Amino acid sequence: MTEQSTAALDTALAYHRAWTNQDFDQAMTYLAEDIICQAPAGRLHGAEAFRGFMGPFVQIVTSSKLIAAFGDETTAVLMYDTDTVPVQDAPGAECLTVADGRITHMRIIFDRLPFDAARRTAVSAQPDHVQ
Amino acid sequence: MTEQSTAALDTALAYHRAWTNQDFDQAMTYLAEDIICQAPAGRLHGAEAFRGFMGPFVQIVTSSKLIAAFGDETTAVLMYDTDTVPVQDAPGAECLTVADGRITHMRIIFDRLPFDAARRTAVSAQPDHVQ
Repeated sequence: MTEQSTAALDTALAYHRAWTNQDFDQAMTYLAEDIICQAPAGRLHGAEAFRGFMGPFVQIVTSSKLIAAFGDETTAVLMYDTDTVPVQDAPGAECLTVADGRITHMRIIFDRLPFDAARRTAVSAQPDHVQ
Repeated sequence: MTEQSTAALDTALAYHRAWTNQDFDQAMTYLAEDIICQAPAGRLHGAEAFRGFMGPFVQIVTSSKLIAAFGDETTAVLMYDTDTVPVQDAPGAECLTVADGRITHMRIIFDRLPFDAARRTAVSAQPDHVQ
């Protein structure tokens, strides 16, 4: 037993379990309305902007596995692997700040390159008239 | 006080401090000879393969900042931001497994897309005769 609180980790894991179980609406309940998310493509302000970023990703995830999860009272870090429709083995890492049971800040890191490559391949495979 | 050991975190932070201080040879002393590194471009086996991957990156880092660091006896997770010569704001995350004071496994996540874009821009800016 330790006296260390893991309140932020508990919230981060609840959020993670929800979206990896394809229940993105449940996942959204763990986010602060004014969440700031620093994503690879830039900074997102607010829960609806976050939904527009993360919601479509959740829909293409076919499986996921938690690699590591640590945290304390205010901060948690998760690393996980995902398989997605366009890209297999697409890991991500998140550093989450939590206040009053809600995620107020998220820094998320993943490699956009294979997604970009898959998109380019999909476009080049289209018949000419729909390019 | 807690009884939780942070041996892996201690080693991970010593490794991190060394390479962010541009002392990559010192950083290498924290790696197991048979380290396995899962990097965005694929799996690397052994310390020399790791040196070939991480050494050139260290040389282009102009500043760095630790975002989060957690760990226990065997596992640590670090998230950090770096500025590099070709790309500003290039964060990374590492999950490290440590045994006997040496890093035996590292999963590292970063976004290759801006580095790829910078490389393409550099190539297209070359005079025609050197392309």
